[in-house]
Amino acid sequence: MTSPAEDIALDAKTEIAIRQDLTLVALGKRPADVALRVGRLLDVSTRTWREDQEIVIKGRRIAYVGNAGSYPGEVGRRVHEPDLAAVPGLGEVHKHIESSHLTPEWEAALVLPRGNTWTCEASHEFSNVNGGKTLEFWLKARAAGSPLKIFPLPGSAVPPTGYEHGGGWLGYDEQRDFLRESLMVAGLDEVMDWPAVWNPQNPSYDRLWGMIRATFEQRGVVEGHAAGIRDIPTINAFAAAGLASDHEAWTVEEFWEKLSRGLFMELRPHSLPEVIAGLLEKGLADWSQIALTTDDRSASDTLELGATDHNVRLAIKAGLAPEIAIQCVTINPARHMRLTPWVGSIAPGRYADIVLLSNVAEFEIAKVWADGAQVSDGKTYLPAVPRIDWPEWATKTINIGRRLEASDFAIAAEPGRATMQAAVLRPFHWTDDFLTFDLPVKDGLVQRDESRNITKFSIVDRFSGTGAVSKMFWLGCGPRTPDTALACSMAHDKHNIWCVGSSDEAMATAVNALAENDGGWALVRGGEVVARVRYEVAGLMSCRPAEALHEEMQHLYAEGAKVDWMYEPTFQPRWFPGFPERLAFATLTCAPWRWVLVAPSDYAPQGLVNVQTGQTHPVVF
Amino acid sequence: MTSPAEDIALDAKTEIAIRQDLTLVALGKRPADVALRVGRLLDVSTRTWREDQEIVIKGRRIAYVGNAGSYPGEVGRRVHEPDLAAVPGLGEVHKHIESSHLTPEWEAALVLPRGNTWTCEASHEFSNVNGGKTLEFWLKARAAGSPLKIFPLPGSAVPPTGYEHGGGWLGYDEQRDFLRESLMVAGLDEVMDWPAVWNPQNPSYDRLWGMIRATFEQRGVVEGHAAGIRDIPTINAFAAAGLASDHEAWTVEEFWEKLSRGLFMELRPHSLPEVIAGLLEKGLADWSQIALTTDDRSASDTLELGATDHNVRLAIKAGLAPEIAIQCVTINPARHMRLTPWVGSIAPGRYADIVLLSNVAEFEIAKVWADGAQVSDGKTYLPAVPRIDWPEWATKTINIGRRLEASDFAIAAEPGRATMQAAVLRPFHWTDDFLTFDLPVKDGLVQRDESRNITKFSIVDRFSGTGAVSKMFWLGCGPRTPDTALACSMAHDKHNIWCVGSSDEAMATAVNALAENDGGWALVRGGEVVARVRYEVAGLMSCRPAEALHEEMQHLYAEGAKVDWMYEPTFQPRWFPGFPERLAFATLTCAPWRWVLVAPSDYAPQGLVNVQTGQTHPVVF
Repeated sequence: MTSPAEDIALDAKTEIAIRQDLTLVALGKRPADVALRVGRLLDVSTRTWREDQEIVIKGRRIAYVGNAGSYPGEVGRRVHEPDLAAVPGLGEVHKHIESSHLTPEWEAALVLPRGNTWTCEASHEFSNVNGGKTLEFWLKARAAGSPLKIFPLPGSAVPPTGYEHGGGWLGYDEQRDFLRESLMVAGLDEVMDWPAVWNPQNPSYDRLWGMIRATFEQRGVVEGHAAGIRDIPTINAFAAAGLASDHEAWTVEEFWEKLSRGLFMELRPHSLPEVIAGLLEKGLADWSQIALTTDDRSASDTLELGATDHNVRLAIKAGLAPEIAIQCVTINPARHMRLTPWVGSIAPGRYADIVLLSNVAEFEIAKVWADGAQVSDGKTYLPAVPRIDWPEWATKTINIGRRLEASDFAIAAEPGRATMQAAVLRPFHWTDDFLTFDLPVKDGLVQRDESRNITKFSIVDRFSGTGAVSKMFWLGCGPRTPDTALACSMAHDKHNIWCVGSSDEAMATAVNALAENDGGWALVRGGEVVARVRYEVAGLMSCRPAEALHEEMQHLYAEGAKVDWMYEPTFQPRWFPGFPERLAFATLTCAPWRWVLVAPSDYAPQGLVNVQTGQTHPVVF
Repeated sequence: MTSPAEDIALDAKTEIAIRQDLTLVALGKRPADVALRVGRLLDVSTRTWREDQEIVIKGRRIAYVGNAGSYPGEVGRRVHEPDLAAVPGLGEVHKHIESSHLTPEWEAALVLPRGNTWTCEASHEFSNVNGGKTLEFWLKARAAGSPLKIFPLPGSAVPPTGYEHGGGWLGYDEQRDFLRESLMVAGLDEVMDWPAVWNPQNPSYDRLWGMIRATFEQRGVVEGHAAGIRDIPTINAFAAAGLASDHEAWTVEEFWEKLSRGLFMELRPHSLPEVIAGLLEKGLADWSQIALTTDDRSASDTLELGATDHNVRLAIKAGLAPEIAIQCVTINPARHMRLTPWVGSIAPGRYADIVLLSNVAEFEIAKVWADGAQVSDGKTYLPAVPRIDWPEWATKTINIGRRLEASDFAIAAEPGRATMQAAVLRPFHWTDDFLTFDLPVKDGLVQRDESRNITKFSIVDRFSGTGAVSKMFWLGCGPRTPDTALACSMAHDKHNIWCVGSSDEAMATAVNALAENDGGWALVRGGEVVARVRYEVAGLMSCRPAEALHEEMQHLYAEGAKVDWMYEPTFQPRWFPGFPERLAFATLTCAPWRWVLVAPSDYAPQGLVNVQTGQTHPVVF
């Protein structure tokens, strides 16, 4: 007989021992641990409710489901919730836990009371920091007793483009080994470097197709990311490439066209209300190829809005029947990810992860069970959070190699020039050409121009230990307040350190302050460090409660509110005035980005590169 | 660039080359081969129709789907079918091609004009004849150019129970190697030996769980077979064991209970009308966990009724919307079998397998395309059927080792006894005890008794070459006509030779005649061989057109109609008067069978064994 302690990371040998035991429990030939009797239960296979059911549990799994009193065997303990409605534990088909900025055990404490019991972890971020440790990192919390099931999908974009480096390199061999090592690995995380998929000349072409090959070979799922892909030929090409899903559709038309080309569509909150209303209006007759998912949400936002439960509530508000909305976070994503034997329904053999609702129409969660035990009461998480001493490969990931100086951020002019042309970008600059500005030269250095909203932006290599810094001029986003800079070690997707500042000194101070903390945020105002947020794990996450992190973030925001921030928006709709938090996403290098600043490399010594074409350019000329 | 010739048996390396090419074709950067423009097209992901669409094809695959005229690239050839409606090629989620009694290339010629372009081959039968050659056998026809996609699932019941032998032994190692060898292997064929699943004492327990383990390990699908499993605890136990599906539900109540325990439900024609009507009446709100499938159907029946198209028509007649019925043979089974990248929808990357309907409501097929080319016009199959010289491992599988004599079928009495008690069975005898009859002894041998419908039944070992024969008395089924016997080498699931006869001489003559033909049927009447049907491949199939086989079967039936057949039915509803064709299924040893006759073994020298308990018993006592 297998002990529950072994039922942690799926492996086939343990799995059959568990199921051999469960089979005898279901027959009543061996005793069960608990019977949870509920007022009603949502059967997601038929999309109907069953009244007065008992869920019989052995170890962490469901052994039996039937009418109350029908189980023929012995039960150790009985629990009755006559007023609550049971639905399966909610799943995230595509989430970056790194964006909560909590380590997995603290993520569990945050999201489990909000119904989220399993997550397909899109390990884009951690994999880019320490690719080789992807599995070890994501499986550690559960091994220490955390009830959240994390199914890691190794990042496909490691590095994000062929023009970046550091933190690991994942190709055919690595993906093959990940898939062999653990059944928890469901597939390959979002393939997002579209130029590297279609264009054989792209330097990432062979690496990326190697990962896709390894995933096909072991019957895994190849997840997609088709941001900005809206024309019909490219949508077709994306599906033809074998990328199985997308979570980047913004309009109902785009969503429908992608869905009908065979892509499994994952819908995120920001486009959810419009898309759901539109699908209902257009007469969508089948929701089985659709999931709701979070992608990125900070701990602060989750505390305010909710986790997966928030997505379900949004869908219901947009007009979707609650039962269909629930299917979109249970059986639909489980089936797409080939995880139905373990999650997605309240059925025998699956983990005993059950969300108990006091109000179905409002999706109000009263209690959550996971691994066969109650884990929350209201928003309160009941189990002890396991203490994990994250090893140095997780906590010491900021490797600049030296303290930076103001001169590291200076941009030299050509001798004798009074002005220089500067290649300038701004957040979410998706057009084919960079902007060009004529900037003044002083003491041999090219200067910012606050009057035209021109400030300076830089990327600090945090992997090589060489102290390499790339920098360029930047439009419409950054502090106008003197001697002020903001730095952060979350810089999608390579997660070097970005810094934006009104003086080179402030930029150096901010990056050095951040490095002392092993990662996170640092805000320098008037030359002084006024706020820091610690992301000591991988420079992305912190090992502490969501509430503690939230408090630190509030301090950062409060200090940030004292800064005069430039604001000259692009066409992009998700760029707001004030504290430029979304700069962490403005550093992306996937489609539809063109010109971007990356850490210096042999290929692009100044870091300015067009990731669609491979073209490089000096930052001033 | 990969040539279409390589796009035959899925392997990941070729797959990525194909998709790299398709991606460029979809973008219009490389030319396509054909554009098929259709009046409308069923998008199974949204369950809606799209009007006036073009399906752009490269090699055997779809590269692009969109409004007519929207494809941006060059096209070699254009075909326009303005009056036809396109739906995806139909799939069988669970079919024994062996039951057509045609080799795969002739199966293709039969079923493709009837819309069936892909089949999850439940290789129960062939695997039991030559287990080690399972993959080689099923992939051979496609390698020779046949457009039918056969996804073999190696038989889980090889041998069917721990009390049988011969023809192969498949366990952990074998299944691991099959899954590694080819991506065409979707999983493990129907796990049907329920006592070997739940009962650790069963001699097949470790072998069977070893195959399940290997299938989990490589992310394959474990198919189930829950015949006779109707009580709630056993349904729960079946699902808890990890068996993912069932195709054996006979009533709407049984179907619903299994569906709601997370089993993917595969519905066969004989229970289809009642079940569909019942599900509609009960308010089933979601059909995504349901498929329609054939399981077993002879070539003669397919010629008369149809193939997968027959199942769809039955469902529509039972009240199901045609679009849902079509989903039940396209996207639903493809998703369950994790084959969505290749089949199940008319979408980029999938095989260009398209069924063109002249009437959707009646499901009338006008033309079928497969592998990117038209393969049928009405019921006419257009391509040349590849000539395959099936090797001796496929054609020389009847190995009795010698000619049989009448004495091989004699049942000796104990010395001095005038009568003996006989353990007696009849077709589909599912009760716990065998029947007991007192039978006369003459010349030291126990005798039949036609007046009480007692005849003789035997199983001839066709694998060992030792000429071993087991025999017993049998009730209510067999020839009353003197010197008459019927023999057949299809005897589910071990596929030894069964023979039923009114004299021992006729039985020996029938089996010898069958062996001369390398398998099939032989009918002896009045001491003469009056009909033979040749199944020269594995003793189960014939390498020739369906029509030729049908003609030979008609001759057998005509000669069989001249025999006076006993008929004393059990409770089982599928046992009819006349020619006892279904004896080929009466030899099953899976649940819910109890006492059965198997070939002699060390374990059961007389062959009579209770497969639920392992108990043996003499045939007379």
